[in-house]
Amino acid sequence: MFCLTITVLLQITVEDYEQAARSLLKALFIREKYSKLAYHRFPWTTAKFLRNAANEMWTEEYEILPDICPCPGEGQDPYSMENIPDNLNYQMKMKDGIIYVYENTEALSMNKPRCLPYPDLETFAIDMISNQYHHKIQQFSLSNSRVFLTEISTMSERYNLEHISVYANVDTHIHAAACMNQKHLLDFIQTTYKTDAERVVLEKAGVKLTLKQVFNNLNMDPYDLTVDSLDVHAGRQTFHRFDKFNSKYNPVGASELREIYLKTDNYIEGEYFARLIKEVAHDLEESKYQHAEPRLSIYGRSPEEWESLSHWFIQHKVYSPNMRWIIQVPRIYDIFKSRKLIPNFAKMLENIFLPLFEATVNPQKHKELHVFLKYVTGFDSVDDESKHSDHMFSYKSPKPEQWTTDDNPPYSYYLFHMYANIMVLNNLRKERGLSTFQFRPHCGEAGSITHLVSAFLTADNISHGLNLKKSPVLQYLYYLAQVPIAMSPLSNNSLFLEYSKNPLREFLHKGLCVSLSTDDPMQFHYTKEALMEEYAIAAQLWKLSTCDVCEIARNSVLQSGLSHEEKKHFLGVNYLKDGPEGNDIRRTNVAQIRMAYRYETLCNELSFLVDAVKSEVVGSQ
Amino acid sequence: MFCLTITVLLQITVEDYEQAARSLLKALFIREKYSKLAYHRFPWTTAKFLRNAANEMWTEEYEILPDICPCPGEGQDPYSMENIPDNLNYQMKMKDGIIYVYENTEALSMNKPRCLPYPDLETFAIDMISNQYHHKIQQFSLSNSRVFLTEISTMSERYNLEHISVYANVDTHIHAAACMNQKHLLDFIQTTYKTDAERVVLEKAGVKLTLKQVFNNLNMDPYDLTVDSLDVHAGRQTFHRFDKFNSKYNPVGASELREIYLKTDNYIEGEYFARLIKEVAHDLEESKYQHAEPRLSIYGRSPEEWESLSHWFIQHKVYSPNMRWIIQVPRIYDIFKSRKLIPNFAKMLENIFLPLFEATVNPQKHKELHVFLKYVTGFDSVDDESKHSDHMFSYKSPKPEQWTTDDNPPYSYYLFHMYANIMVLNNLRKERGLSTFQFRPHCGEAGSITHLVSAFLTADNISHGLNLKKSPVLQYLYYLAQVPIAMSPLSNNSLFLEYSKNPLREFLHKGLCVSLSTDDPMQFHYTKEALMEEYAIAAQLWKLSTCDVCEIARNSVLQSGLSHEEKKHFLGVNYLKDGPEGNDIRRTNVAQIRMAYRYETLCNELSFLVDAVKSEVVGSQ
Repeated sequence: MFCLTITVLLQITVEDYEQAARSLLKALFIREKYSKLAYHRFPWTTAKFLRNAANEMWTEEYEILPDICPCPGEGQDPYSMENIPDNLNYQMKMKDGIIYVYENTEALSMNKPRCLPYPDLETFAIDMISNQYHHKIQQFSLSNSRVFLTEISTMSERYNLEHISVYANVDTHIHAAACMNQKHLLDFIQTTYKTDAERVVLEKAGVKLTLKQVFNNLNMDPYDLTVDSLDVHAGRQTFHRFDKFNSKYNPVGASELREIYLKTDNYIEGEYFARLIKEVAHDLEESKYQHAEPRLSIYGRSPEEWESLSHWFIQHKVYSPNMRWIIQVPRIYDIFKSRKLIPNFAKMLENIFLPLFEATVNPQKHKELHVFLKYVTGFDSVDDESKHSDHMFSYKSPKPEQWTTDDNPPYSYYLFHMYANIMVLNNLRKERGLSTFQFRPHCGEAGSITHLVSAFLTADNISHGLNLKKSPVLQYLYYLAQVPIAMSPLSNNSLFLEYSKNPLREFLHKGLCVSLSTDDPMQFHYTKEALMEEYAIAAQLWKLSTCDVCEIARNSVLQSGLSHEEKKHFLGVNYLKDGPEGNDIRRTNVAQIRMAYRYETLCNELSFLVDAVKSEVVGSQ
Repeated sequence: MFCLTITVLLQITVEDYEQAARSLLKALFIREKYSKLAYHRFPWTTAKFLRNAANEMWTEEYEILPDICPCPGEGQDPYSMENIPDNLNYQMKMKDGIIYVYENTEALSMNKPRCLPYPDLETFAIDMISNQYHHKIQQFSLSNSRVFLTEISTMSERYNLEHISVYANVDTHIHAAACMNQKHLLDFIQTTYKTDAERVVLEKAGVKLTLKQVFNNLNMDPYDLTVDSLDVHAGRQTFHRFDKFNSKYNPVGASELREIYLKTDNYIEGEYFARLIKEVAHDLEESKYQHAEPRLSIYGRSPEEWESLSHWFIQHKVYSPNMRWIIQVPRIYDIFKSRKLIPNFAKMLENIFLPLFEATVNPQKHKELHVFLKYVTGFDSVDDESKHSDHMFSYKSPKPEQWTTDDNPPYSYYLFHMYANIMVLNNLRKERGLSTFQFRPHCGEAGSITHLVSAFLTADNISHGLNLKKSPVLQYLYYLAQVPIAMSPLSNNSLFLEYSKNPLREFLHKGLCVSLSTDDPMQFHYTKEALMEEYAIAAQLWKLSTCDVCEIARNSVLQSGLSHEEKKHFLGVNYLKDGPEGNDIRRTNVAQIRMAYRYETLCNELSFLVDAVKSEVVGSQ
C-alpha cells in the first residue's frame, strides 16, 4: 500500500519500483558479504533489515568487528618485545596476486592452502558489474533522494541548537609528510640548522653532505627562509593541477629538503621526520581529545620497506596515544616498472603484503614489525584519481603476474588486489588473536564514478567521496550502508572543487556518515590548529549548528581506527547500537532527537526497500 | 581626444561625460574640504589632481595630518601625570548641538567665540544634496567601473605570488566587550569563581550580591558552564536579526553576567573587564606585530561617563602598546529620551563632547581624562543601520536643542553632529599641541545608501561599507578618495550577508583601501586567534595571494590610529608617499609591481576626470 503511494508520487510503475528495490538490496548484500570477509564493519540496522529480507533472524552475535589493539595502559611500554606469539613457520606463496598460506612445505607442494577465505576475481568482477547496473536506476533514485531530502530539511529545523564546541574528534585523513603546518616546518628547519649545521645529513651520488653544505648548494641561508620562500602551500596555481600540487611536498622546490626532513628512510634514519611528527603528536596530547590517523608510505618497490619503517618507528619512539597509523600505498606501479625496479604488478603486491604475512606467521622473527603493526589500523590507496586508465578491469584482465606492461593498472584493479590480500591477512591474524586492518582508500576525489563502486565493495570507509554528488544511486547506497566518508573541503578547494560547491553539508544533512579531516595541513592550512580550522570554516560557511558539528566529530570517532575501548570512552559504552540508545550525550553532545531522527529515517528507507521486495514475493505467489 | 575615445566606448555623449566628471570632482573637493577641517587624512595623489583641476600648485606642506600620540618610550610611565599643560579657563557653550569656545566670560556674554572653524548645517545640507545628486550618474559610472574592472582583472594575473604570511596588521574594528573569544570568557568566569566566590560583585536594587549568590540566583553552577550554555555565539538565528544578536552580549542570557564581566562602570569598578582586556592585550604583545583598536562605549546619558571611563583605564592600568582606543557612541537617543534621562538631543551631544572640551581647555582639572585621551584615537558611531527613520535630514531639520521628540534622529543627523563637534575639538586640541581624533563610524553595514554619502563627507574611514556594492558611483568615489574600509566578512556572514556574496574581494581587486577586522570575536570566531581566522578564511575562500593578504595588512596599518612613528616603523619611512616610493617591501611584503599598478590606475582614473573638466573649460573658451 505504502509502496503504491510512493510509486504514484514518483510516477514510476510498481514493477520499476520493485526492480529498483531488489537491485539496491542486492548491492547491500554484496557489500555485507565483502565486509564480513574482511572484518570490516557493517551497520547493525542495515544488517537487521537484510536478514529480514532474507527471512533470517539477526542477533548481535552474528555481527563481526575489527580487532584493534587497545592503547598500552599507564606504565606499560608501548615498544615492549615481551609476550610476542610463537612462530608457526607456515609457508606462503603468491598466486594471482593474492598470498596463500600453507600449513607446511608439504601442503605447499600439494597446493593445499589453509582453510582461509580467498576471494576470487571472477566473483568480484560479477559483483562489480551487478553493482554498476544501478546506474540504470538513477532516474528512480534521484526522485527518491529528492523526496528524502525535502523531508530532512523540514525535520532538521527542529534541533536548531546554536554554538559550536567540538568534543572528541579524530583527523581521519592526514598524510604524515604534511601533518605539520608550514610555519612549524620552517621553525624546525631553522632549529636544526642552529644545532646541526656541521652534521652529515645527506648522501648524494656517494658524496656526504652536511646541513650547511646542503644549504650552500641550494644557495640559501635558512635564516632568510620565510613561509613564502618555503613554497609548500597550495594555492590558485594548484587548482586542477595535481602535478603542481605534488611538487609542493618539496620545501623551496628542493627534493633534498624533502629527503632530509620528510622521509623515514634516509641518511639520518628519519630522525628529523620522527621529531617533527612527535611535536605534532605532543600538541594533540596536550589538547587531550584530538586524535589523528597519519598516513605513512609503503611503496612496494622492495620487500625491505616494512622492516625499515618499523625500525624507524621503534628507534625514534614515535608511538603516541593520540595517533593511529595508516599505511598508504601510492598507485605508482608504472614508475617502478619503467625504472625496471619490478618485473610485474604481482611483485609490487608481494613486496607490500608478504612481509605482513611473514610477521603474522613468525612474529618472533620480526619483532619490530610485530610491535609496529599493533598501532597500524589500516591501508590507504593514494594517487591522482583523475588520471585516466585505458584498461577496463574485468575477469578477463591479466592476472598480476601477467601484468607486465608499463601501463598502470586501473583504480579498481588496485583496489581489488589490495582488498583481497588484506582480507586473507585479516583472517590469518584473527586466527592468531592479532589485530586486523581496515581498507580505507582515497576514493571519489576525482575521476570515474566506478571508483566509488569498487570501494563500495572493498572499503571499510573512504576519503573524499566528492563524486558521490554525481551519482544519486551510489550516494543512496553509501547512505544505506552508512559507509563513513572522511571529507577535506579545504583540500578540495585547493585542488578539485570550490568550497561553496562541496557536497559535505548536503551529505551531512541527508544523513551520510561524514567526518572532517585536513588531508595536508602543510599545504592547505594557515593556523596552528589545522583540524580546528576545518571545523571553524565549515561551521562559519555552512552555518552548522553545534549538533551538526558534534555529529561530525562523533562520526570521525566511529570512522577511525581507535580501539573498541577508546570508542566506548569517547562515545559511550553502547556506541555500537544504533539510534539514541547508542549515544551518550554527555560524551558526544549530539542531541538524542538528532540520533532518533537519523535512526528512524534509515529504518524507513530500509523498510521501504524490504517491503517492496517482500510484497513482490507475496504478489508472485 | 582620449576622453572622446571613452565616450564612444561607453556610448555616452561628451557632454554627459564631462558633466559626470565635474560632479565626481566636486564630490572629491567637498570631501577634501571636510577632511582638512577635521584633520582627517586625504590622499596626496588625489589632492594633487584636485589642485591641478583647480589650476593650483600642490606641495607636501599643503597637506595636513592627524596628530596621534606616539607610544611612551621604554621606561616611560604611560600613566604619568607630569608635564600636563596649564589650564586656560576658556568658556564653552553648546549652540545648535555644537560646542563653541570663548576666550573668557566676557567673550561668551558678547557671543564672540574664538576663531575656530565651525561647520554650519546649511552648508553641510547643501553639500549632502549635491553629493546625492551623483546617484543620477549611476549609469555612467557603472559602465566606467566595468571597463576599469576588466582592466584590473587582466593586470592582476601578473603578480600571482602564492603563500600567505601576514606582516604587521591591525584589527581595525573590534568591540572591547566582545574582544575575547567565548572559551576565553568561559575560562575567566570559572577562574574568578574559584578565587572570588564570596566577593561582593554586584549591587541589585540595593542588595549586595557575592559571585556565589549571583550564580545561585541564576540557578547555575559555573563549573557546569560550557561554551554552549554560555550562549554568546552568533549563528543561524541571528542572520538578519540584529535584536537577537545584541542579546548575545549577555552570557547565559543573563544581563547580570554582562554587568559583572563586561562593563567598566560596575560594583567592582570594572576590574574583571579590565583583566580580560589585558589578557587579550598580552596575547597581542606576545605576537608582536598584531594590534587592535577596541571600542569602548560613551553613551551620552550623563556627563560623568568620561571621568569614570578614564579612571577605570588608569586605575587598572589598561594601556598596551598593541592597542589604541576608539570611543563608540551608540545611536540610542530614543531610549534615553523615553526613560526621561535627557530632555533633547543636544543634551546627549553635550554629555559626550563637553567633557572633552573641558579636559582640553583645563587638563590640570581633568588629569586622568587628559592621560586617557592620549590613547584614544577616534570615535565610532554604532547601532543597527537597518532601522528605518521617518525623518529626512535637511537644513530645515530641528536643531538638536529642539529635537525633543521621542523618535531617534536619522543616521545622517547623528553623523553630522558628531563630526561637527570632533572637528571643532580637533582644531582646539591642535592649537594646544594635543592629539586629534578621527571619526570612524560604522557605515554601510545595512540600511540606506545615503549613510555612505554622509560618511563620505564626515568620516576619516568607515567600518563595513557593504552597501557600496549597491552604488557604483559611491564605490568609485570611495576608490578615488581612497577612503579606508574596515571589513568584517565573518560578522556580516552571521548578520547581514552570506560570505560568498561579500564584496571584499571585489573591492580589493578594484583597488579600494580595504582591511580585515573581526568586529566581535566572542560572537563570531571559533579559534584562539580571531584575526588570523579572518585572514585564513578570506585567503582560503577567495584564494588570495600573499600579495593580496599583505596589501590588506598594509591597508590596516594605514587605516589605523597608530602613530606616525609606528606607521613609519611598520610600513617604511616614506609611507605617506603614494606608489612604490612609499612602500618598503621588506616591511610590508607587498610587491612593488602591485604598488605601481595601484598608483598608475588611480592616476589614470583621476586624470580622465581632470582632463574632461579641463577640456570642457578649453572648449567653452
